[in-house]
Amino acid sequence: MAIYFHWEQSTADIWQDAFGTALSHVDLRTEQALGDPKDVQFAVVWAPPKGRLKQFPNLKYIFSIGAGVTHITDDPDTPLHVPIVRLQDDMLVQDMSCHILHWVLHFHRFYDLYKRQQAEKVWKRHLYRDNQERNVVILGLGQTGLDACQRLSDLGFKVTGWSKSQKSLTGVDCLHGEGSLRHALSRASILVNLLPLTPETTDLINKETIEMMPDGAFVINCSRGATIVDDDLRQALNTGKIEAAALDVFRDEPLPQNEWYWTHPKVNVTPHAAAPSNERSAAQFIASHIHRALNGEKPWPIVDLQRGY
Amino acid sequence: MAIYFHWEQSTADIWQDAFGTALSHVDLRTEQALGDPKDVQFAVVWAPPKGRLKQFPNLKYIFSIGAGVTHITDDPDTPLHVPIVRLQDDMLVQDMSCHILHWVLHFHRFYDLYKRQQAEKVWKRHLYRDNQERNVVILGLGQTGLDACQRLSDLGFKVTGWSKSQKSLTGVDCLHGEGSLRHALSRASILVNLLPLTPETTDLINKETIEMMPDGAFVINCSRGATIVDDDLRQALNTGKIEAAALDVFRDEPLPQNEWYWTHPKVNVTPHAAAPSNERSAAQFIASHIHRALNGEKPWPIVDLQRGY
Repeated sequence: MAIYFHWEQSTADIWQDAFGTALSHVDLRTEQALGDPKDVQFAVVWAPPKGRLKQFPNLKYIFSIGAGVTHITDDPDTPLHVPIVRLQDDMLVQDMSCHILHWVLHFHRFYDLYKRQQAEKVWKRHLYRDNQERNVVILGLGQTGLDACQRLSDLGFKVTGWSKSQKSLTGVDCLHGEGSLRHALSRASILVNLLPLTPETTDLINKETIEMMPDGAFVINCSRGATIVDDDLRQALNTGKIEAAALDVFRDEPLPQNEWYWTHPKVNVTPHAAAPSNERSAAQFIASHIHRALNGEKPWPIVDLQRGY
Repeated sequence: MAIYFHWEQSTADIWQDAFGTALSHVDLRTEQALGDPKDVQFAVVWAPPKGRLKQFPNLKYIFSIGAGVTHITDDPDTPLHVPIVRLQDDMLVQDMSCHILHWVLHFHRFYDLYKRQQAEKVWKRHLYRDNQERNVVILGLGQTGLDACQRLSDLGFKVTGWSKSQKSLTGVDCLHGEGSLRHALSRASILVNLLPLTPETTDLINKETIEMMPDGAFVINCSRGATIVDDDLRQALNTGKIEAAALDVFRDEPLPQNEWYWTHPKVNVTPHAAAPSNERSAAQFIASHIHRALNGEKPWPIVDLQRGY
């Protein structure tokens, strides 16, 4: 029995480890080492090369590394008689919300400032705004964005969500479309970026869009580094237009040693750690379901192709 | 009828406004204009000057501008036959929960460590436990403790509450009584102290009780400084028994310049800022309860001085 694995953004070793824990024997095949296609019984994939899956005649299940499956069904050659299992990873959503809550509270309640005061032995309390007077704007309203909106709203914050297509959530002002971006940004006393990286979102946070934000705003980036024009953010931090930033993602990762981000006093660097359980918990989830299949049970949730999920 | 008002960090005009809305007539007396002490029927105070309250022979109620009352009962001359009403402020509860959420997430997700790594330009991700494998123990289940328990439980944490008297909350393991303190502490991978300061809770966090906690635990103190034996905590931080602490309260406040807390690398000092009384909402609460008293009803909650809160 072999498992074909393909996900460009992840290395196979994390999966090898997770599978090794759950399964007695693991023969992991990648594009670099496909071996005999007849051995492959399970495919664990994000956007596999076109035509690849049809080459495995003994394929029993296709596991999607994601909640969606269009990255698999897009390929007209995908053998649709093979059941597709989609990922259910509530952990990722929860972990991302925790990261966002932490940094929103960190900035809102001056913990950054108190840390600097501690270094100078200064005992000085700063009055913060009531939560309901603090505008938090979340760009990107997928499952994660919606969850973060809800949790911030539950804490009393005034939350605005912005997404490409229309969304709605009780207690949250949901804006959508390019035309309302300026409106959303004008409220962003704390900006949380959760947008997927696409040609449209590349360089979205730039000199022009930063100008749309209130003076002294905070930026929390949990999306991808390339959504921000680095020099424009640096400039805004230096002038005070942006008060501080919590950045988890960068154009080059690991962040190179000579990058200014490391040493800027208003920047908090985390090493792409906002929701890293992605790989780990996804691998655990899929490994446990391969284990089920090997024991003659059915993995779940199996996608209903008529319904589309 | 006159109201004596004293809070050094606030000006009387905000209170004058709030009282003016709730009461038909307001005669607010301050240290600057005490007038005839016989007029004063209500005192609204945070840490009034020693001996002041006993000078009002017709005092009916003392309102504490805070959840605690030791800033009033500390004064041996305080007329203890006069009922003391403590502040119940939903805003204060929410703010305290925000403080607690921040520090629980801060420690749970290694943000303390990432800050130190940033100083050394180290890009290294640390795997954290799943929330449901992280035990958070909250000592003190008043309104604030219960709210914090609920919110942490909503984020998936494994929450244990401990209080003097029996409480219950869905999804939270509520222990009570001195006999179960050891049990509670043995789970406290993150300990949140919200206990009121009483003779029983003074010095409660000491060498012996710290030993009951898991190795590498975190301590978040939002109670009063005197609940912790400073030297015992210092020792535990130095040995690594306690991994780090977020301390908002201290025996002496402002924290003296020569205190070791300021410079200990594992200590986060905040200047009693976890839930500073919100002037607006506190004034509204107290004004509405003075209104009750003037209509012959009882303000609440009245402090049980035997119990201490």
